[in-house]
Amino acid sequence: MEILKEYIDFLNRKLEETTIVKEPEQLYKPIDYILSIGGKRIRPALTLMTCDLLADEYEKALPAAMAVEMFHNFSLIHDDIMDNAPLRRGYPTVHEKWDVNTGILSGDAMLILAYRFFESYEPEKFRDLAKLFSKTAIEVCEGQQLDMDFENREDVSMEEYILMIEQKTAVLLGAAMKMGAIVADASATEQEKLYEFGKNLGIAFQLQDDYLDTFGDPKFFGKQKSGDIIANKKTILFLLAKKHGKPEQVEELLHLFSITPKDAGQKIKTVKEIYNQAGVVEATKKQIDKYRKIAFDNLENLSLPENKKTWLKTFVFELMERNT
Amino acid sequence: MEILKEYIDFLNRKLEETTIVKEPEQLYKPIDYILSIGGKRIRPALTLMTCDLLADEYEKALPAAMAVEMFHNFSLIHDDIMDNAPLRRGYPTVHEKWDVNTGILSGDAMLILAYRFFESYEPEKFRDLAKLFSKTAIEVCEGQQLDMDFENREDVSMEEYILMIEQKTAVLLGAAMKMGAIVADASATEQEKLYEFGKNLGIAFQLQDDYLDTFGDPKFFGKQKSGDIIANKKTILFLLAKKHGKPEQVEELLHLFSITPKDAGQKIKTVKEIYNQAGVVEATKKQIDKYRKIAFDNLENLSLPENKKTWLKTFVFELMERNT
Repeated sequence: MEILKEYIDFLNRKLEETTIVKEPEQLYKPIDYILSIGGKRIRPALTLMTCDLLADEYEKALPAAMAVEMFHNFSLIHDDIMDNAPLRRGYPTVHEKWDVNTGILSGDAMLILAYRFFESYEPEKFRDLAKLFSKTAIEVCEGQQLDMDFENREDVSMEEYILMIEQKTAVLLGAAMKMGAIVADASATEQEKLYEFGKNLGIAFQLQDDYLDTFGDPKFFGKQKSGDIIANKKTILFLLAKKHGKPEQVEELLHLFSITPKDAGQKIKTVKEIYNQAGVVEATKKQIDKYRKIAFDNLENLSLPENKKTWLKTFVFELMERNT
Repeated sequence: MEILKEYIDFLNRKLEETTIVKEPEQLYKPIDYILSIGGKRIRPALTLMTCDLLADEYEKALPAAMAVEMFHNFSLIHDDIMDNAPLRRGYPTVHEKWDVNTGILSGDAMLILAYRFFESYEPEKFRDLAKLFSKTAIEVCEGQQLDMDFENREDVSMEEYILMIEQKTAVLLGAAMKMGAIVADASATEQEKLYEFGKNLGIAFQLQDDYLDTFGDPKFFGKQKSGDIIANKKTILFLLAKKHGKPEQVEELLHLFSITPKDAGQKIKTVKEIYNQAGVVEATKKQIDKYRKIAFDNLENLSLPENKKTWLKTFVFELMERNT
């Protein structure tokens, strides 16, 4: 899709123009760094696309799109500190390249700079955008906290897990679209439907991500095969196996998720067997379909010509595939 | 002054009502904790006072005052991590009581929650307040970065030091007052004068803080006597001694600020002698007077009845004395 490339080129050009390193350099260099080492620009592209869809113009959604991208990268810097991650997009994380203090402070500055992008809109729009932004940002913090809490809990339910991914990642996709709708002067109802579309599609794609990590073809998926099993990450697959598996399967699974053998081959094989026997593949697909359906029901109820709806669907799937 | 007590009681009551701990508790408990272990509420009291001064009403400035206090406490949590500080107001810091990750994430949430307080104002005011807030918050980040940079630099000038304290602490005092003026519908000129008044007074008080740490009477000052000398902190006194001292004095000073003897008595005595001989006391007082004068010149040019100006001066001095 040509238009997706156009959005992303536009965003990258504007990001480059915006992130001028000034004094104190130690504060601004990491901001320039994290924004320049890539990123798929999924979220700001959703903002531009939604405005384009509704108002046949995407340039005026640029400040909102930049705010979304700035916020996303703020959360990456701080999350990487919290997760003790050495790499991001194949490059050293900010706290690795500099130090933890630099990561904390540059992240703080990015969160504030994100708000500043809204200043180019008139007061009513500024308030609508900043309100949505704050609500979303707090939810993302709550989601990150839940994610950290869950690492130390044995009794996380599937519902809790879905709430966590909703807050940690899906609400920002919904908000990115809603911001495009706000800029395009869409009605409150339209805004809300696009928000729900983005959010629920976000949940579906996150669940699919969990699924593909274990069952996807690594040739297309691009990540380490079964990385979640190796890292004992309790994804939707694990939680569904715990829910639907026989007691002896659950027991073995719990054991396997407490060890980290040097050669993970046998562990991966056994876990996948348990997943298959416990009907996890079907149960996961059911969950993915559920959220995808909620997303598309919201789209159906939107007052848009059919060709625009088709365009939106194509766009979203192409965009999301960049994530896999 | 009765009114100061009234503001602070009002603020503490509202803070208690506002900081309800909800799920995830690990995110919200530290927010409740940092806000409940005291703090002099200087900044939010300035917001209420300024609104009271201009509009004879302070309750309507409460949300702005809360935003200022929330931001101030966010910055304390993150600064305490960066400075590796074990105590805050005599209690364990958030990262000590919980851990660094909790401090990072709860701090992030507080920065976002600060913005949310502005949502109760109408769009124009919301934008004015949020714009001022963002500008100030970025300056505070820059000030904190400069402060950290200066620790590893030997060539910091007095001008750079004053810029650092201006950004790290004084702009928030100016902004706290300007927010009260915005809520009170003051003109842009009045807003600006009150901002400059608060900011320059903030610089003067910070310099006075440096002075009192070394030359103040610990009975009234309440901190460890000469703590800055013991910790080798390069305050305005040190920088002025470097500027005005004889080469041999400067050499000795540089040596003394590179060691940490177990018994600091002799070191403190020698440093103070050098300060006295180099004329640092007078030079510091001159700097304090300079910024105090800028502050009061701004006040003189403000179109307010004399009795209100007198009231403001009395209030500000009483408030600031709580800091010493």
